[in-house]
Amino acid sequence: MSNAPRYASRIARMKASEIRELLKLIDRPEVISFAGGIPDPELFPAEAAREAYAAALRDPAVALQYGVSEGHAALRAWIAAEMRRDGVPAGPDNILITAGSQQGLDFLGKALLSPGDTVLCEYPTYLGALQAFSAYEPRYDQLRPGGNRTPASYIGRAAKAGGAVKALYLVPDFANPTGLTLGAGERADVLRLAEELGALVIEDAAYRALRFSGVASPSLQALDVAAAGDLERSRVVYLGTFSKTVAPGMRVGWVCAPAALIAKLTLLNQASALHVSSINQIAMLKLVERGYEARIADARTHYRRKREALLDALERYGRGLAWTIPEGGLFSWLTLPEGVDAAKLLERALSEVRVAFVPGAAFHPDGSGTNTLRLSYSLPTTERIEEGVWRLSRLL
Amino acid sequence: MSNAPRYASRIARMKASEIRELLKLIDRPEVISFAGGIPDPELFPAEAAREAYAAALRDPAVALQYGVSEGHAALRAWIAAEMRRDGVPAGPDNILITAGSQQGLDFLGKALLSPGDTVLCEYPTYLGALQAFSAYEPRYDQLRPGGNRTPASYIGRAAKAGGAVKALYLVPDFANPTGLTLGAGERADVLRLAEELGALVIEDAAYRALRFSGVASPSLQALDVAAAGDLERSRVVYLGTFSKTVAPGMRVGWVCAPAALIAKLTLLNQASALHVSSINQIAMLKLVERGYEARIADARTHYRRKREALLDALERYGRGLAWTIPEGGLFSWLTLPEGVDAAKLLERALSEVRVAFVPGAAFHPDGSGTNTLRLSYSLPTTERIEEGVWRLSRLL
Repeated sequence: MSNAPRYASRIARMKASEIRELLKLIDRPEVISFAGGIPDPELFPAEAAREAYAAALRDPAVALQYGVSEGHAALRAWIAAEMRRDGVPAGPDNILITAGSQQGLDFLGKALLSPGDTVLCEYPTYLGALQAFSAYEPRYDQLRPGGNRTPASYIGRAAKAGGAVKALYLVPDFANPTGLTLGAGERADVLRLAEELGALVIEDAAYRALRFSGVASPSLQALDVAAAGDLERSRVVYLGTFSKTVAPGMRVGWVCAPAALIAKLTLLNQASALHVSSINQIAMLKLVERGYEARIADARTHYRRKREALLDALERYGRGLAWTIPEGGLFSWLTLPEGVDAAKLLERALSEVRVAFVPGAAFHPDGSGTNTLRLSYSLPTTERIEEGVWRLSRLL
Repeated sequence: MSNAPRYASRIARMKASEIRELLKLIDRPEVISFAGGIPDPELFPAEAAREAYAAALRDPAVALQYGVSEGHAALRAWIAAEMRRDGVPAGPDNILITAGSQQGLDFLGKALLSPGDTVLCEYPTYLGALQAFSAYEPRYDQLRPGGNRTPASYIGRAAKAGGAVKALYLVPDFANPTGLTLGAGERADVLRLAEELGALVIEDAAYRALRFSGVASPSLQALDVAAAGDLERSRVVYLGTFSKTVAPGMRVGWVCAPAALIAKLTLLNQASALHVSSINQIAMLKLVERGYEARIADARTHYRRKREALLDALERYGRGLAWTIPEGGLFSWLTLPEGVDAAKLLERALSEVRVAFVPGAAFHPDGSGTNTLRLSYSLPTTERIEEGVWRLSRLL
């Protein structure tokens, strides 16, 4: 009837990246998937995009031609203004347009990391960041914002056995995979640690615009600029994207950083894909100029409703489990009873109750977190969310 | 009146990449530019692109969503069929969609090169390839197809002082920058050398579709597959692109290679920009499904006319100069009298007669070729081409 068992038997021997690829394929209608982590296509602005592309093509000599590697000037200016609204005094020279924030991670890895250098990140953390960095062969060490009582000097010494700590990577708002948001004390702690280690902070803000409850915290970059007095002296690099707010298929994101670093990353972009698609940059500008706020408001309402469905269902059926309560974004993080292996649970969930999720070990550089898993509520309907949690509870 | 003198004074102390960036900026109407090397926007299919994007957006859940890292399945199949028509028995598993052929160069550098490894390339060669590879810190040695009487064993030994020869890079058809095409003997020579060295051949086919005179040679990949009996055993990696035949601003190209290498490059793509823009891949497929042949025929006619204008003008005004006669593509290569420095000539050309070109030393990894320069006939009208050559001749 379905090939879920065949998939499931492969899961046990698969690497994290392979699990991710596999789970993308599980879009058969009988499976309720909490695995994806991709935006709900119901939110995609199809009609507005048709208009935006048609408008871009009214100047084909620009939209279809090569462009400069730093990105389309008017889009950089628009993003700089958006960054200023979020507390970062950026100008266009502080913005590089990238093919999603993922490409920014790759360029930062290439610019910063040599084999053996240390990257500090939370355990668990975003898998794609580990993939991007790992091409440059760093080692990873655990960052515990606020909960880290290890002195910086100790972390620094431990790192130097390999290579210096070059970067602290984190998703401060509604993190992938945990859904958690750093508080003010934790943010201060991260910035202090980076200062003591002389390392950059890579702030992955992929979900930041999608807050649907609670009060926004200033971004790490805004806090650091306020302390340093100037974006040019900040040690925070901010990665933004339109993938979660407009459409990932257009592959448009950005890096906001001191101008000297932007110039360096621009050369890496030139040596890689030359530049982000001209027509996509122009169409994206037209899309965000007309109703970015309204689009984000829609997305917030949409995902808040789905989160409510998930949390309600977990309250109802989640005896013995612990989960995070996200104030935005697409994810909640589930902790199973001690000793329950989420990868094995996924095998059974797929074959017995047709539910998919991502086992938590995939997000841990050290393979720990075997009794955790990530639930994304972005794709299923609220009814399917409830049904999926109920099905899962029957297994546990 | 203009800031050409200011530009010119900077040229002398600039690096090759900076010269290229600068020359892109020289689009002031009083300057006749042979510098660009970009396609003529007159050829861009604006109306067809409007239709293609509108058609792609009839399925927004695919066009605006994340896609798989190997690329849109139907586009890979279309390209595989196109490769088969060109003598390479490729299937979709042999194709990775990249953001132009430039991104393929970056991924190949990342997959193949360690610091100190040797890349053999022609002197002069495509600057963007050197930029892509140089991020991975290889050394370069000169490839002389057909003219190389140095035994492979010697090249191999010399290379091992640094690191092994990992790749031979070349543009066999209407090369950037020389406009030259390898003959059958030279192609056989390159493949034999690669075999003896145990190295990959990177065939940059950016201009291959734009032949407008003479008879097509089989691609290096087609020749190698015929000899090896199977694409999976070939040592040639083919880089294709729609940048010169459809539109560079869409950033869609491809790598054709054995399936195992494609799988490896796909992982690098996933770790870099995840995948090429979904909507651009789908729109490109719609554009090439309807009238790719007609579009290429138009481009051939268009550039042949411009080449004729350039060659006619050089015949008339080019006393004391030597130049190549391209059978396709966008470039001719000029050799000045011994001792004349093309970089100094560019300064005078910009300030005194308002003509731009790219000095040839920029394309030489060893900085030689100072009395050579690249002329691109793609952008100026035939009248401006004649006028530009006449202006240049007044300087010489």
